[in-house]
Amino acid sequence: MSNAPPTNPLNASCPTPLPQHERVVLGHGGGGRLTSDLIEKLFRPVLSSRVLAEGDDSAVLDTGTGRLAFSTDAHIVHPLEFPGGDIGRLAVCGTVNDLAMVGARPRWLSAAFIIEEGLPTDLLARIAASMQRAAEEAGVELVAADTKVAPRGTVDGLQIASGGVGLIPDGRDVRAANAKPGDAVLVSGPIGNHGIAVLAARGELAFDTTLRSDAAPLNSLVERLFDAGVAVHVLRDPTRGGVAASLNEIAKASAVSIVLNEEAIPIDPQVEAASEMLGFDPLHIANEGKLIAIVPSGDAERALTAMKELSVGEGAVPIGRVEEAPAGRVLLETALGPTRIIDMPAGELLPRIC
Amino acid sequence: MSNAPPTNPLNASCPTPLPQHERVVLGHGGGGRLTSDLIEKLFRPVLSSRVLAEGDDSAVLDTGTGRLAFSTDAHIVHPLEFPGGDIGRLAVCGTVNDLAMVGARPRWLSAAFIIEEGLPTDLLARIAASMQRAAEEAGVELVAADTKVAPRGTVDGLQIASGGVGLIPDGRDVRAANAKPGDAVLVSGPIGNHGIAVLAARGELAFDTTLRSDAAPLNSLVERLFDAGVAVHVLRDPTRGGVAASLNEIAKASAVSIVLNEEAIPIDPQVEAASEMLGFDPLHIANEGKLIAIVPSGDAERALTAMKELSVGEGAVPIGRVEEAPAGRVLLETALGPTRIIDMPAGELLPRIC
Repeated sequence: MSNAPPTNPLNASCPTPLPQHERVVLGHGGGGRLTSDLIEKLFRPVLSSRVLAEGDDSAVLDTGTGRLAFSTDAHIVHPLEFPGGDIGRLAVCGTVNDLAMVGARPRWLSAAFIIEEGLPTDLLARIAASMQRAAEEAGVELVAADTKVAPRGTVDGLQIASGGVGLIPDGRDVRAANAKPGDAVLVSGPIGNHGIAVLAARGELAFDTTLRSDAAPLNSLVERLFDAGVAVHVLRDPTRGGVAASLNEIAKASAVSIVLNEEAIPIDPQVEAASEMLGFDPLHIANEGKLIAIVPSGDAERALTAMKELSVGEGAVPIGRVEEAPAGRVLLETALGPTRIIDMPAGELLPRIC
Repeated sequence: MSNAPPTNPLNASCPTPLPQHERVVLGHGGGGRLTSDLIEKLFRPVLSSRVLAEGDDSAVLDTGTGRLAFSTDAHIVHPLEFPGGDIGRLAVCGTVNDLAMVGARPRWLSAAFIIEEGLPTDLLARIAASMQRAAEEAGVELVAADTKVAPRGTVDGLQIASGGVGLIPDGRDVRAANAKPGDAVLVSGPIGNHGIAVLAARGELAFDTTLRSDAAPLNSLVERLFDAGVAVHVLRDPTRGGVAASLNEIAKASAVSIVLNEEAIPIDPQVEAASEMLGFDPLHIANEGKLIAIVPSGDAERALTAMKELSVGEGAVPIGRVEEAPAGRVLLETALGPTRIIDMPAGELLPRIC
């Protein structure tokens, strides 16, 4: 072994560990690099599950007589109600969508409530009613629940951890690892509305907006794709960490490159204005009612037509393509400038919305 | 209609609503009457699920090719580590046991972590390792997880909401509604150890104890009962609200009376001493590694022999019997005095341990 430094730094492997943290920091929850650090370095070494390691939105489980999808999500959001949704609607849609993203038909939900002492009961009742409406919209049933009350000051109002179980029809194989060079990358509508609507509800924008969260169940949109005969390779709902985090996870899991066309990415003018003002990249902002679909390029038109039949997919457009190299990277082709790399968000980029 | 008051108050129905609360109070989380109030009056009217309304420890779901059990539980405990366990072990055992209590074989778990900013990462790693050990002990796999980080002061250290899915073998029908007059009531060992051990770990006892939480997976104990050919009618793990809450729920669901023999109830001398000092009823104290089994009296001996084969059931004893009337009531026969009614705990009886 030579002690000399490598002459070309691009050829060197990178043994430097990411900065060690003795304490959990907010960025560990941002859905970006620090979150994957926490998972890879703290949880994965001790939680030795092959299924968990696959890192899809839901676990896919073989019961012997069929396949199940199983998923969980903890929801914290402030304020608890905002234009277009509330924490209850988020809890239902988040879990329904995680199940749908592995090709499952969501069937049953659970909800574990942690309620702060002093929470107004009428607010709690409104949130419960909103969950029921969202469950009916998605065609799922809330079958298991738990209620804990925490002393004032030990929880921020209300947290809901939702879980869900769905059944995966035979023949479907939808995973983050299934993107293939030549595939088309589609998005079901404009991105960033949820994150900016929550910020606006907190009074953190200097201007008024009419933006509403896009929180919606996406399972009927997914069924529409399969009904249309689309050979769906990958589905992902770009929530925490936004489109950038989802596409980076897919590029890594599939060992492919994803190339986006900047001009094709649909963004509401109000989301664009708020992002420019606050210095955010809309690709990093959370969505709760959008999906990314990666399909063979020959199926792209059929997929777009199918999605546009539903209001939740009426803004569906192609935004990019899958290429072989550089594997694991997401690139953005800009209209005027050079292609740039879209990284995972690092940590706490946005004011926290979840 | 007469305006005269009913002459015999025992014949009057009771239309008086329980006191209305405009805000959630701690007692709503105690596992007793206030908790069932919150569920019956706030959640049930809007969450219209037949399965949820059955109120068993897990939902029982028909997939078309078999039956699944599905359950969730939110865990909050202070301190996060205590003699005999920690919040991670509780999260695994709590969900494994809820699945086993409907006769399911627990298979897959989920965990949603809500972590307070600033939590020491070595503490989090210890808790994750403890979850893995408990999962191995129970023979289950943690397949789905979510990690959120909440700003300092908005969550108390760490909360874990666990979920689980199990498969129910054909022919098993274990529900709170299945207790029959003539059945024997068994408990798998001494009660109250978990609650008192957590209090002791907080320094809330005036004396030292060697008590440890009983937190343990009970699924192998349940399998042992079925292997021995016991016709199991009801299983319940008396966690929050203790044996009193579990038996009241069973008496109500089965429309039977449950009569306990005070002298037969196994209680560790240190639990007895702590309860006397603090004015608690051990029947109200939480357990995390005990089960109540209600079986035909002819199967009782066989059931006790089967449970005693495992260390987790070595203290199994009969503690009472099921009778026809008064339906919905739990009675305690005392050695010297009259029989007394054991009610649901009302609200916040114990210093909170969950």
